[in-house]
Amino acid sequence: MGNNELKQTMLSKAQIAKSASRKLVSMSSEQKNNILLSMVDALQQNIKEILFYNEIDIQAAKDAGIGSAFIDRITLNEKRFYNMIKSIKDVIFLQDPIGTIAEEIIPSVNIDIKKIRVSLGVIAMIYEARPNVTVDAAVLCLKAGNAVILKGGYEAINSNKILAKTICVAGIKAGMPLGAIQFIDTMDRNVICELLHLDDFIDLVIPRGSEELIKFIKNHSTIPVLFHGKGLCHTYIDKDADVNMAINIALNAKCQSPSVCNAMETLLIHKDLAEKVLPSLCKLYNDAGVEIIGCEISKKIVNSIKSATEKDWRTEYLDLKISIKIVDSLEEAIEHINKYGSMHSDAIVTNDKKNANKFIAEVDSSAVFVNASTRLHDGNVFGLGCEIGISTQKLHARGAMGIKELTTTKYVVKGNGTIRI
Amino acid sequence: MGNNELKQTMLSKAQIAKSASRKLVSMSSEQKNNILLSMVDALQQNIKEILFYNEIDIQAAKDAGIGSAFIDRITLNEKRFYNMIKSIKDVIFLQDPIGTIAEEIIPSVNIDIKKIRVSLGVIAMIYEARPNVTVDAAVLCLKAGNAVILKGGYEAINSNKILAKTICVAGIKAGMPLGAIQFIDTMDRNVICELLHLDDFIDLVIPRGSEELIKFIKNHSTIPVLFHGKGLCHTYIDKDADVNMAINIALNAKCQSPSVCNAMETLLIHKDLAEKVLPSLCKLYNDAGVEIIGCEISKKIVNSIKSATEKDWRTEYLDLKISIKIVDSLEEAIEHINKYGSMHSDAIVTNDKKNANKFIAEVDSSAVFVNASTRLHDGNVFGLGCEIGISTQKLHARGAMGIKELTTTKYVVKGNGTIRI
Repeated sequence: MGNNELKQTMLSKAQIAKSASRKLVSMSSEQKNNILLSMVDALQQNIKEILFYNEIDIQAAKDAGIGSAFIDRITLNEKRFYNMIKSIKDVIFLQDPIGTIAEEIIPSVNIDIKKIRVSLGVIAMIYEARPNVTVDAAVLCLKAGNAVILKGGYEAINSNKILAKTICVAGIKAGMPLGAIQFIDTMDRNVICELLHLDDFIDLVIPRGSEELIKFIKNHSTIPVLFHGKGLCHTYIDKDADVNMAINIALNAKCQSPSVCNAMETLLIHKDLAEKVLPSLCKLYNDAGVEIIGCEISKKIVNSIKSATEKDWRTEYLDLKISIKIVDSLEEAIEHINKYGSMHSDAIVTNDKKNANKFIAEVDSSAVFVNASTRLHDGNVFGLGCEIGISTQKLHARGAMGIKELTTTKYVVKGNGTIRI
Repeated sequence: MGNNELKQTMLSKAQIAKSASRKLVSMSSEQKNNILLSMVDALQQNIKEILFYNEIDIQAAKDAGIGSAFIDRITLNEKRFYNMIKSIKDVIFLQDPIGTIAEEIIPSVNIDIKKIRVSLGVIAMIYEARPNVTVDAAVLCLKAGNAVILKGGYEAINSNKILAKTICVAGIKAGMPLGAIQFIDTMDRNVICELLHLDDFIDLVIPRGSEELIKFIKNHSTIPVLFHGKGLCHTYIDKDADVNMAINIALNAKCQSPSVCNAMETLLIHKDLAEKVLPSLCKLYNDAGVEIIGCEISKKIVNSIKSATEKDWRTEYLDLKISIKIVDSLEEAIEHINKYGSMHSDAIVTNDKKNANKFIAEVDSSAVFVNASTRLHDGNVFGLGCEIGISTQKLHARGAMGIKELTTTKYVVKGNGTIRI
C-alpha cells in the first residue's frame, strides 16, 4: 500500500470507529452483554479453526528459529483458550461503569450537577505476541462502551485475524455497531505512525509489549497514551524486620512467578540485618535455581554471590535472577528505589511504623507494600475485576487498572433557565 | 546558549525540581500554607517594583505596535494585582488533597489497601501573555505538593521574572525546598523542545495559551499533556423550549463575557421554533452590539443576518459575534455539535425530558447543560475552588479542573507477611 493510500485507509477506519462509538453510548448493559455472550458462543464453535491458525503461527515461529519462551507466549492451547472464554464471562459479570456517579459535586449556585462516568470513545490497542489480547482488549473496551482498533504483532497474525473475525461477525449479528471492533492486518510499521496522529478520532492509545514498542509510541503519538511499562520492583528489608517474614516475602516476590512485572528484581537489605538474612535466604534462592548477584558487601557475607554492575540495578530480569544490595539506611534504600526503580511496586519489611510511613510517603511508586509481597499487585487481588494492566505512569490511571480506567467523565448540569450573573 | 548547553541547563533544572518534589511530599499542609503566606507578604511589599516592571512590558508591546486587546492581557494594574493576592489566599484555604482517600478499595485477599491521593511530582507550565499565571500556577502546584517549572511568554517577560523572583525568595526563606519553583527566562523556543523530552523528571506539562502553542506541545511532548483547549460552545433551542427562557440563555451565553472559553459561539434552533425565537433574539443581539451571521434559512427570517460559511461553524470568535443555524431535528443538532464543537460546553433548552436525555447521552462534551447557560462551566461555580482550567481532553481530567487534578494516586498495601499464593 502506498503512503497516501495507507493514510486514507487508517483515517477511514478511525472515522468508522468514531461513528460506531457514538452508537455504543446509547446501548444498555444488557445489549452489550448479549453481544459478549454471542462472542463466547462463536469462539467455542470455532475452536478447531482458531487452534489450526494458531498452529500456523507457531510453525512459522519455529521455522524462523525463534526461542521457546517466545513461542510459548504466542501459543493458544485448549487450556488457554478456555481461560480466554472465562475472561469474557468475567467481563459480562463486571458492573457496567457507564452512567454511574464518578464524584459528588456541590455547586456554589442553584443548579443540579452530576459528574457521571461515560465511555472514552475510540481506543487503539497496539500489542505484541499473546493472541488472547485481541479478545481480552476487545471485550473490555466494548463493555466500557468504546470502539476499539486492534493492531497485533506479526508473530501471531493468523491467530489474531481469526479471533478478530470470529468476534466481529458474531458481535455484528448480535447488534454491535459496524466498526466497533476493527483489526488491522497490515504489517507495515507506518500503520502505527498513521494511527498515532489521528487524535481527532482516536481518544486513547494503549501499547502493550516491549519497552521499545512503548517508547516508540510515546515518542510518536499525539493521542494520549496509557501504558503498562516495565516493573523493576524492589523489596527492602529494614533493620527492624522480622527475619522469617522478610525471607518469606523475599522468596515469594522473586520466585512465585519470576517472568511477570510485579516480581522483585532487586533486594535491598539494611546492613545490621544482612548477616542474619542473607545466608539462609541465599540457600533458599539456590534451591529454587535463582542466580544471585550483589554488591561487594553482600559478597563478603555469602561467597557464592557474583558481582553486580551498575547496569544490574537498572535491569528487569523477568527471570530467576536477583541483584542484592546492602544499604546503610532506610534513606539509602528509598534513594536507590527512586533512582533505579520503574515506579511499579516496591515493598518494605519492617516492624518500625515510623520507617514504614517514611517509605510509604517517599517511595514514588504506583503501589507500596508494607510487610507484603510485591506479587500482590494485581487487579484481581485488589478486587478490581478484570485487569487491563498496571499503569506505571501518573496521569489518568496509576497502578492496577480496571474497566473504570477505560472511561472518562462528563458534567451533566440541569438548570431552570439558569444563567451566569 | 548552544544547543548542548541548553540541554544541560534544562536537564539540571528538571533534576533539581525532581529533587525538590521529593522533599515537598513530606511537608504538612501548615508548612505549605506558611510558605504561601510568606509569598503574599513579599508580593505586597514589592507591589511598586512589580508594577514598574509590568510597565516596561506594556511599553515594549506598545512600541512594537501590538493591539490593545493583547496589551490589556499583559497589564497588571492594582486591581488585578490584588485579585492575584486574593487567589493565593483562596489556595491557602483550599483543603489539601494530599493523603486523602481517592477511592475505596475492597481487596479479594486479606490485606489492607488504601488508594491515597499523592502529588504528581514535577509540573512544567508553559503559558503566554497574562503574568498572573506565573503566581497562580506556582501556588496551586505547590499546595498540591508539586515542584513547578514555569516558562512564560516573552510578552510579559519582565513582569514574570520579578513575580517569580519575589515568590521564590520569599518561599525559600519560609522553608520551601530549593528548586520547587523555577522560572525559565531564556526566550529560545528550543527550550520548550528540550523540556518536552525530559519525561524521566517531569511528570506533566500544562500548556496554557493559543491553539498553536497547544498543538506544538502535543506534537513534541513525550511527557503527558493536560491542556485547556479551545471552547467552541453551542446552545441548541429545541422544538419544545420555553421561548423566553431560550432567549435569556442564548443572550447570556453569548454576551455576558464573550471573550472567554465557555461563551457560546454557535446557536442552533429547531426549525419549528425559529420564527418565534429569532426576531426578538436578534433585536437583543443587535442592541448588545453582536454581529450575527447565519444559514440561508435564518436569513429568510431575519433579513439583516449575513451569510455564514463552512469556516464559521469551526470558528471560536471569542468576541461579540455569533453564527446561527436552523436545524431540522435534535439529531441534526447533536451531529453538528459533535462535528464542529470542541467538546467543551454545550447546552440544550427544552421541556422535553426524552430529548434532554438524548442530548446528554450523545453530545460528546466535557459538560452538557439542560436549560442553563454554558457560561456556568467554571471551577468556582461548580464548587471546586480555584480552577486550573477546563480540560477539553478525556484522560485524567475532563471539564473544570481543581487542585485534585494536580495530583495522582498511590496504592498503599499493608500485610502481615502476606505473600501471593
